[in-house]
This record gives sequence, C-alpha cells and structure tokens, in this order.
Amino acid sequence: MFNVAVIGATGYVGAEIIRLLQYHPEISVSCAVSRSFAGKPYSNIYPNLKNIFDMPLSEVDIDSLCEQADFFITALPHDASKDIIPELINRGKRVIDHSAVFRFRKKQTFEEWYGTVHEMDDLLKLSVYGLPELYRGSISQAALVANPGCYPTCAILGIAPLLANKLVYTTNIIVDAASGISGAGRKSDLAYSFCETHENFKAYGVTNHRHTPEIEQELSSLAGEEITISFTPHLIPIKRGILSTSYLNLKDNNMTPDKLYKIYSEFYKNEFFVRVLEPGVFPEIKNVAGSNFIDIGIAVDKRVNRAVVVSALDNLGKGAAGQAIQCLNLMLGIDEKTGLTHPATYL
Amino acid sequence: MFNVAVIGATGYVGAEIIRLLQYHPEISVSCAVSRSFAGKPYSNIYPNLKNIFDMPLSEVDIDSLCEQADFFITALPHDASKDIIPELINRGKRVIDHSAVFRFRKKQTFEEWYGTVHEMDDLLKLSVYGLPELYRGSISQAALVANPGCYPTCAILGIAPLLANKLVYTTNIIVDAASGISGAGRKSDLAYSFCETHENFKAYGVTNHRHTPEIEQELSSLAGEEITISFTPHLIPIKRGILSTSYLNLKDNNMTPDKLYKIYSEFYKNEFFVRVLEPGVFPEIKNVAGSNFIDIGIAVDKRVNRAVVVSALDNLGKGAAGQAIQCLNLMLGIDEKTGLTHPATYL
Amino acid sequence: MFNVAVIGATGYVGAEIIRLLQYHPEISVSCAVSRSFAGKPYSNIYPNLKNIFDMPLSEVDIDSLCEQADFFITALPHDASKDIIPELINRGKRVIDHSAVFRFRKKQTFEEWYGTVHEMDDLLKLSVYGLPELYRGSISQAALVANPGCYPTCAILGIAPLLANKLVYTTNIIVDAASGISGAGRKSDLAYSFCETHENFKAYGVTNHRHTPEIEQELSSLAGEEITISFTPHLIPIKRGILSTSYLNLKDNNMTPDKLYKIYSEFYKNEFFVRVLEPGVFPEIKNVAGSNFIDIGIAVDKRVNRAVVVSALDNLGKGAAGQAIQCLNLMLGIDEKTGLTHPATYL
Amino acid sequence: MFNVAVIGATGYVGAEIIRLLQYHPEISVSCAVSRSFAGKPYSNIYPNLKNIFDMPLSEVDIDSLCEQADFFITALPHDASKDIIPELINRGKRVIDHSAVFRFRKKQTFEEWYGTVHEMDDLLKLSVYGLPELYRGSISQAALVANPGCYPTCAILGIAPLLANKLVYTTNIIVDAASGISGAGRKSDLAYSFCETHENFKAYGVTNHRHTPEIEQELSSLAGEEITISFTPHLIPIKRGILSTSYLNLKDNNMTPDKLYKIYSEFYKNEFFVRVLEPGVFPEIKNVAGSNFIDIGIAVDKRVNRAVVVSALDNLGKGAAGQAIQCLNLMLGIDEKTGLTHPATYL
Repeated sequence: MFNVAVIGATGYVGAEIIRLLQYHPEISVSCAVSRSFAGKPYSNIYPNLKNIFDMPLSEVDIDSLCEQADFFITALPHDASKDIIPELINRGKRVIDHSAVFRFRKKQTFEEWYGTVHEMDDLLKLSVYGLPELYRGSISQAALVANPGCYPTCAILGIAPLLANKLVYTTNIIVDAASGISGAGRKSDLAYSFCETHENFKAYGVTNHRHTPEIEQELSSLAGEEITISFTPHLIPIKRGILSTSYLNLKDNNMTPDKLYKIYSEFYKNEFFVRVLEPGVFPEIKNVAGSNFIDIGIAVDKRVNRAVVVSALDNLGKGAAGQAIQCLNLMLGIDEKTGLTHPATYL
Repeated sequence: MFNVAVIGATGYVGAEIIRLLQYHPEISVSCAVSRSFAGKPYSNIYPNLKNIFDMPLSEVDIDSLCEQADFFITALPHDASKDIIPELINRGKRVIDHSAVFRFRKKQTFEEWYGTVHEMDDLLKLSVYGLPELYRGSISQAALVANPGCYPTCAILGIAPLLANKLVYTTNIIVDAASGISGAGRKSDLAYSFCETHENFKAYGVTNHRHTPEIEQELSSLAGEEITISFTPHLIPIKRGILSTSYLNLKDNNMTPDKLYKIYSEFYKNEFFVRVLEPGVFPEIKNVAGSNFIDIGIAVDKRVNRAVVVSALDNLGKGAAGQAIQCLNLMLGIDEKTGLTHPATYL
Repeated sequence: MFNVAVIGATGYVGAEIIRLLQYHPEISVSCAVSRSFAGKPYSNIYPNLKNIFDMPLSEVDIDSLCEQADFFITALPHDASKDIIPELINRGKRVIDHSAVFRFRKKQTFEEWYGTVHEMDDLLKLSVYGLPELYRGSISQAALVANPGCYPTCAILGIAPLLANKLVYTTNIIVDAASGISGAGRKSDLAYSFCETHENFKAYGVTNHRHTPEIEQELSSLAGEEITISFTPHLIPIKRGILSTSYLNLKDNNMTPDKLYKIYSEFYKNEFFVRVLEPGVFPEIKNVAGSNFIDIGIAVDKRVNRAVVVSALDNLGKGAAGQAIQCLNLMLGIDEKTGLTHPATYL
Repeated sequence: MFNVAVIGATGYVGAEIIRLLQYHPEISVSCAVSRSFAGKPYSNIYPNLKNIFDMPLSEVDIDSLCEQADFFITALPHDASKDIIPELINRGKRVIDHSAVFRFRKKQTFEEWYGTVHEMDDLLKLSVYGLPELYRGSISQAALVANPGCYPTCAILGIAPLLANKLVYTTNIIVDAASGISGAGRKSDLAYSFCETHENFKAYGVTNHRHTPEIEQELSSLAGEEITISFTPHLIPIKRGILSTSYLNLKDNNMTPDKLYKIYSEFYKNEFFVRVLEPGVFPEIKNVAGSNFIDIGIAVDKRVNRAVVVSALDNLGKGAAGQAIQCLNLMLGIDEKTGLTHPATYL
C-alpha cells in the first residue's frame, strides 16, 4: 500500500478524494489534514463516512506529515500552499496540487488573471499539467503535478481532436459551459445558499473567468499557435457536473458527424475515461456524475459549417478528485484506472 | 370587461394564462376549453386555483364558444388548431395562437423545419408575429397573432439592438441557451420525469431545434440581410425560465460595455418589460421567473472584440402566457402593461 | 393610501412583504429599513424588483420613520427589536412584529424555550396573536400584533376544528412537519448552502423546536385544557412551503372523513384563506406556495380510530408575510383579503 | 464467480443492482432481462454504464436463463412474476424477489391490501423475509427471499430495539416517513414528472399505503403481539432516500437518550450496515444515499415520555438493491458485506 496524505481534506474536492480512496486497493490515506477541524474524526465532518473513515484530522505539521506519507494531494487556497508545497518538494515528496499556481507555463499568465504575485515560480519548471490524456508520460515522472481546472478539462478534451488534426479555424472558438454548485467549493456564501441558487440559472465570470487562460494555453499548445477564445460559465442548480458546448468553424465543407466520430474515436482509442458518443447522441451530466468519465458528443452544423462539441464530466470527478487519483496512479506506476472504474450513479 | 376564451387551457401555457388573468382588471375568462378534461372544474386540474377559478372546462364547440367570447387564445398541438383557428377567424374573432404555424413569413420555412404540410397558409398574410417590442402597431390591429416561441423571444430581444444599429457582423452569431422543463409542456414522457431530469443538464436539438429558423427570420429582418446562426438549447432542472448567452463579433474595435449599455437603454427606452442591466450586471432566472420581464446584460470580450449578451425571461411569462396577454392588451386597445406588472417571485 | 414602514426589509420575510405590497391597492411602502443595506436601492438587493421598487433602504431612525409611516411591520432578530418596538408603541404607532417575543401569553414560556430574558413583558398585555381565523376581532383593534410562526399557523389551523369541537383526546397528539429552506431566513450558513441541502432531507430540532410551545399554547386555548404535544420539523430541499401531518386520537368510533369534512367546512365557512379539501384529497405545497392560502385534508385511520390531518401553506405567505398583510388589512379596517387573493404559482 | 441473472433489469431497482454488481468481486451478471428492451445493449438504456456493462438485454426465456445463472433477482410487476418465479424455483434456482407477493406470512394480508388473489401461496412457506438483521440464518438457506419494502426496512430497523426490549407500549405507534421519487419506479406518469414534483411536497397513501401491513407484521413479530400503526408516507423532490420519524410511548419514565443509545448499540453491535448515531445526532439522507447503510438517531421527548426515532436509508440501496445483494451474499455463503461497503456520496 502506498501512503498518501491529503492536505485540505475537508473541502469538497478533499472529501471526494477521501471518498474515492476508500475504493482504492493500493492507496491508503495515512493523513487527512485540516486546519479548521484538526483533532476531530473525519466522519464528524462527513458523516457519510462513519465507520468507514473515522481517522482524526491532522494539523499542518510538515515534519510529522513527511514521516507518514510519500505522496501528497493538496487542495488548498492559493496563499496557504506557498508555506507547504515547497517544503514537501524539498524533502523529496511528490505532490499533486489542486490550485491554479502551477498550471501555467508562464508565471505572467497566472499573475495577470489571478491578480497576485507568483511566489513559487521556481517550481514552475518542475510542474506538469495533470491531464493524463495529453501528458501521461511527464505525469508519471513528475515531482509536482498541477491538477487541471474542471472547466478546462471538460473543454480541452472536448476540443483537442479538432485542433490536433487541424480540422478547424483557430479564431471564433466559443466555449459555453455550465457547472454544478460544488464547483464553488464548500462555502457559506449567501450566493451559494439553497434559496439563492435553486430554481435559478445565471452566467458568471462573463469574459473574465480565470479558467479562460488555462483553456487557451492548452488549446494553443494543441494547435501550435496562439488561440484566444470566448468562455462563459453558468451556474446550474445541481450538486455536481459540468457540461460544455463548444463552437468551432470547420475548414472542410464536407465534414460529417460520422467522420468526426471516427476521428475522435481514433484520437481517444486508448483512453478508458474518454467516451466518444455515437453521432446524434450527446452527453448528459447524470451519465458522468460520480465517475471519472468524460463523455463527448459531436455535431456538425451544416448550414454554417461549424462543429458543435458537447462534453460532460463530474467537476469533482474527472474535473478534480478523480483526475488527481488518475495522476497519482500514474506516479505510482500502477494501472491508471485503479480505483476509478465505477460508473456514474445516474440516479 | 372583455371576454376571452382559452382553448387548450390545461397545458402549462394555458394554465399560466388562466392564472395571470386572475390578476387582470379588464379581462374575464369566459371559457376554458379542454378536450381531455371537459366538464371538470378547472381547479380539479390545477388545485392552486380552488375557490378562485372553478369554472368547468368546456368542449370544443365553435358555435358555443363564439357566443361567449370575442377574443381567443389558443394553445394547441399543431394539428388540432387547423379545425379551429380558421373557423374563428371566419367569424370575425381575433386570435392569439401559441403554435408555430403562423410565425413564419414563408410557409416553406415552417414545412422544412416542422416536416409537415402547412394547411393554413392563406391565414399567413393576416398573421402578425406577436413580439410587441418590434411589432406593436401591427399587433394592435391584427386578427391573428402568432405568439413567438420562448427561445426566440429571449434571443431576439437580446440581440436586436446590435443588429438594428449595425454594430456587429452577421456571420458567426451563436446563441447558446438553456430552459426550464416546463418549456416541454405538460407531458408524461419519461424524459421529463423527475428522476431523469433532476441533478442533470444536457444539450438537446443540437443543430436542429425548430426555434432556429424563427430566431433567424427575425434577426434577418432586423439586419436587413439573411442571417444564419448556430443555436443550442439545453435543459435545466428548474421549472421555469430561459437564459440565453449570445456571441456576436463587433465591428468597432473601441466598443465598450458603457456604450453598449447606452445603445440598449436607448433602444428599449419605452419598453417597460425589457430591463437593460448596468454594465457588469447579468440576468438571473430568479429575477424574471413568474413575471413578464426580460432582463438583458451585455459584456464586451475585449480580447476577441466580441459582444456577449445574456438575456433571461420566464418561458411561461414573457416567453408565452405573459406575452400573449401583452398582445391581447394591445388588441383590446388598453394599456399594454395591464395585469402584467407584478415582479418575479425571486424565491 | 396607508403608509407602512417595513423594518428588516431585506430578509426573506421582509422581501416577501415588499413584493406582496406591490399588488396592494391601498397600502404604500413609505420606508424600507435595513441596517446592512441602508442607502442602496432596494432593487439592488432584490433585482426582481428593478423598475418596480427601487426606493433606497433607510437607516433605523425612529423619528424619521415615525414621520413617514403610521403602521410598521418588523422582521428583526430578537434582540434588535427591543430598541425599536417600544419606541414605536410609545408614539402611538401600530406594529406587526415577526419575532417570537410577543407570541406567548406567559413570559416564562418565552424565557424557557428561547433561553433569554424577556425584556418587553410590559408590552405582552397589549399584544395579540396574529391569527385572524382565531383572533380577528382583537387584531383589528390591536396596537401590537405578534405574527405567528409558520409551523404554528399550519398546525393550529389544521387541528383547531377537532379540538374546538372536542372530537379528539388531548393526549397523544403528534405534529410531524416539514418546511422549505427559506424558513431559515436569508442566511449564509453552510448548513443552508445548496450543496448541503439539495437531494437531502432531515429532521431537526427534534423534541426541542421553539415552535412547540407556540402550538401548545393555542391548542390548549382551543381545548380549554393544557395540551402537550410531540412536534418534529424536517427540512425539505424546496424554497418555500410547509406541510404538516398531525395525528390525533378520535373519541367517536364512528367518525368518518365525510363527517369531518362537514365539521371542518362549517368551522371555516367564512374563511377565504382556509381551503378544506374534499375527503380523499390532500394538500400539496405547489398549490399554496406564493399564495396566502392554507389547504387542509383530513383522513380517518379507521383501524386505530385516529384522525390524520394534513395541512399546507407557504411559510413566507400565510406563514409570515401574507398573514402579516392580512392582519394589517384588519388593523386598517379594510377587506382582509385586499392584495392577497392571487393563487399559488403551481409551477 | 457466481452467475446471477437480473429479471426486470431496466427499472430503477434493476439498474441499481446492475450498477452495484459492477463493484462486486464475486458475482457476475450473466443475464440482464427486459421484455421492453430485449436485444439492446444495457448501456443504451443507462448510458452511465457505457464501456462498463454493454451486455445486450435478454428475452424472458426460462430455459435459456436457467442455463446461464443459478441465482436470480427479480424486480417485476406483481403479475409478471407468477409465470417466472415458480418455474425458477421448480428447477432448483434460488430467487430474490422484489415484489410484495412473498413478504406476508398470511396470504390474506396480501390479498386484502393489494386487492388481488395470491396465486403463488404454495411458495409462501418457502419464502423468507429478506431483512438480514432479523432473519440472517433463514436467508442464508432460503430458496426464495422476499426482499422487503423500502419504507418497511427503514421503519422496522428503526423501531426494532424498542419492541424487542419491550421498552414501549404497543399502541399509539406512529410512523411518519418521506421518500425520494425513485421509489415510484421508472415511470412516465405525469404525477412523477419534474414540473409536478419539483418544489413540491405532499403526503400520499394516507391511512392506506401498502407498506403498512408489512411494517405491522414485523413489528408484531418483534413484540410478540399484534400491533397496528398509523403510517403516512410523503414524497420529497429528491431522487433517492427515505427518512422515517417514528413515535412510540415509553414505559419507563426515566428513560434517557444515553440509555437508548446503549440499548440500540448493543442490539446492532454486529450489524455493519446499521449505524446508531450518538445522542443528539440525527440521520440525513445525504449520509446514506448511494450506500447500503441505515442511520438511526434516537430522542426522548421527556415532556410526553415518548421515544422519537429517526431512521434513514437509500430506498434503492438498503431499501432495495443493496439489501438484495446483502441477501445474495448470505445465500452464496460469502461475507455479507462484499461489494457493499462504499459510503454514500454526500454530494
């Protein structure tokens, strides 16, 4: 058994990691760390885990943590991580981080969009963007993995085959997406209270959401040229799940859904967690929520010769905790799917 | 008091008309017609109206109906209306119809998208598209008003000022929208059951939804040239409300949200039911659900010089029943706002 | 027009009062008071009211308020009210208060259940329990009305005819109830966040909810003897509505639903807002939410000779804001139903 | 690997069995049977299982089925099962049935409450009530197990320790419960459509729900005397989960929550799936939904000397599919917990 510590274990991403690791045959959670709840049994905070994971939450004590675990998953606010992650890396530990700090190749991108100074840019050269479908090899060797954002994972995997195969123009790309409310984290903000969100739907972060440059960085990398997109997220009154609908202008006037289906199937032929749906079938959140799958459906809007790609995943699954475990499996050198093959709940 | 008959009174649109007319000081529902429930008190079907509107539902008997009402609102399946509407028009009655049959200037558009023969095309020349903000004058004189679709109302009013003022290119227009489930009508389909829709979100009608040509017709008319768009509707697990996010490429590189706000405010300065939100503020469904308002927020995506317009309305309100009553008020020659000034419930 | 000030206008009860008063033909809101948001337009907080009620929120300035209004509705936390209500009463203003402070005949009951000292017990002799169906006469003359709790209104009106007619034993009375989340008020507590409440259901306040003694006080008064009950509230993932199911042992072995229906219909024959449903029909929250109605359905569990009473209302309607306006109408000497006759939204 | 066939595999209970068996290390689904969808891949009906369980659905062909499986789980409408279950039993197969047909010791009870003739009463003497916590030994040997109803499982396990220890009076027992909508099955009835159920809550089957006699049978058996109860189910707008609140009068005036907690803990000390919560803590559906756990919280209403027991489970988990697999594990002679130890999703 590999020993893993989860730092920031009581947020929703942390909780999903803890929950998913209960199914994992080769990983043991040796520490669950939380400043707010240190000393309390984990199942006091998440009573669904009563009699399953009752371990008391630990303080943030680097020495002690390093004795207990070789691998770390951090799900922390941006500023908390700078006291912790460099320490872990210095001691030779391997880390998967959920913040945005290590996702960008250029520290300037981070600083512009997050409005803060990047205080760990020396670690940027170590870090790998944790999207196994694109960076599997590097992830398996990485000391520091930046787990991707939920919207970026959904958009990038949905669009990748079109750009990698140079099937679309790189201008006029639009990503319109919607997320369940757990994407905002475990927060007591009024804006995420039941009465303010139920029976509601809204756009937010219009033209300025921080996942925009992350999507652009990876799309640009796939296309081999700089891409700028429009990205609009929306808030759905559901607990978990992201669905994104992307619009890209096709170069070939004779493209068909069948051809695209073959191209996508070929592109993802070795990817267990990417399910390309047959022409005419589109993803639904209930088919991925609770799982590590991303489902992708592709249409051709003939009248305007535009590809419309719909992709869906669980923001806590393939969009965060599931993907982190997929990366961790790679880092451990075990089957990438271990502990992650359960289907969505549907109901 | 004006006497109005509602034919197809037990669907969700019919029910909303009946409910809204309880607030109306100058209109009386003289007949509520339903094939399925004829003879039963209306409040047996909608017990929220017990002791408020208990009138027994009527059979479809044209002679009898024509004695009881001068104005008719029809909310019928497409094929049922052809036995009824021409009869009503022949007898000099004035009709507001909720189907798509009379919405298109060209019968071919209807026939292509609806896959059926248009059997009442002689009435097309009489019919007026019931969007008061664009066709107020004609509506007030019309014998036959085609009440617009819910998505089209939301998209057209959201985009109109941009096209009317020739601020955007007419290609690469994308309308991405989402609707509550009442938009599907009062149906017992498994697909709209609670367990299949709750905690779910999906796209549907991708590249082929029937509201596409309706949006295109009106956008083309505003622009003075043929416009083809991409339109993707989604299904939100809420009862009522539509929100659409539209993307249009701006001609002027120096456009700002403030300028657009002024342009929109000017365009809609006399429109009580259109609320243009200040720059940086965007609509939410809870602010319009239950009301006849449409809220519009506008952003400029500077990096790509694109306008992003978010508009929201209640698919049963401004998107159907409310708009029908607004048209009816115009036809009656009374204040267009009568009986429609109540705010959304928010909660 | 009568001038009314609403103090505590931005909580959910305050917001519902403001919203409902938009429909009211004889009452004008002359001041909306809020410490937190003073100076801001009301529609900034509740954008559903944009262009309908944009009045800036006022500070709590008793002198100024007393110049602007003769009637006050207070929806304040318990401790805020003691600086305000006595002042208003001293200046001859008439007040409807939403807190529990003035609901109990004995200050000891309040002090025991609320764990605090009653600092305004001299006002208790003035105050009237604001349930018009039981205390119409006193309310119309009252200087100070204690608007009842939401659960108590639902339970008391559901049970009243049985006790008033001495049809049931006064022991073994059980009230099991469930409420929508707006009952907790406009709060940013994690416990009321979307992710913690959606797809959930739980009991709370088991054996110790503060509405228990309020229900008991009124049931005792109806029965003419001390009654102690078991009351268990539950939290439903809906915005608004309360439904309570009460169990009472019948004295007469031959009681039938038909007989009970007649007894209830007789008891409430003059009560517009109380709808007694026919035998076999039971209330649903969607039939009352948004309205001032309470629906009551009655069954006889023959095998155990027990009455099962199901009653439902809107916790913000008949359970709070609607009832307050009903009381206010009585205090103003106008038709009690004014501005309150709209039906539930159903959808 | 043991081979199991699931007959009626496309209803919600069947789907949950199929989903849960994907986690099971010793059971293989050799056939999934569905009249309506025979020939189609299972994942066409439930696309969450795409690439996980794509087996085509089988026709109902007893000979063929008996070659492929030794154990059968049937989740069929009552009248379909009579052509199938006797055949399976005759051929020596072992069956777990989800209908009510084999749950009652007396066929008269079934016939009275279900209003139909019991056509398989010769099988009644073989059948065992599939509640492992009460009938573990018999289940392990049974040819035919009647999987309990969802409400009965929740109520019986909640109340059992009180009756088995003779701590309460056997009269005035009230069970008030609420269920998610999946309890109604996979149905296209209007009554279970999204728009009719969302933001709603209602009682149903008041005084006559068919789970009443099932609860009574088991409570009577535990008490050693005939018990008649009042049972009222309600419908919650959630997908899955049941919570029941039961009221029982205590014999001992000095009973405390601590004592009851000890008694419950002792009674269930060997039961992994029954979690007795500490005094003052009560179950929530999110802590059990998706799992095979039942959580129980106990209060003492001192003022009336009444025990209030709140119990919660997943109607598709411990209330149906999970419990069936728990029984199946017993029948197979393997660890009862196999494949069932995953926690609830919470989110």
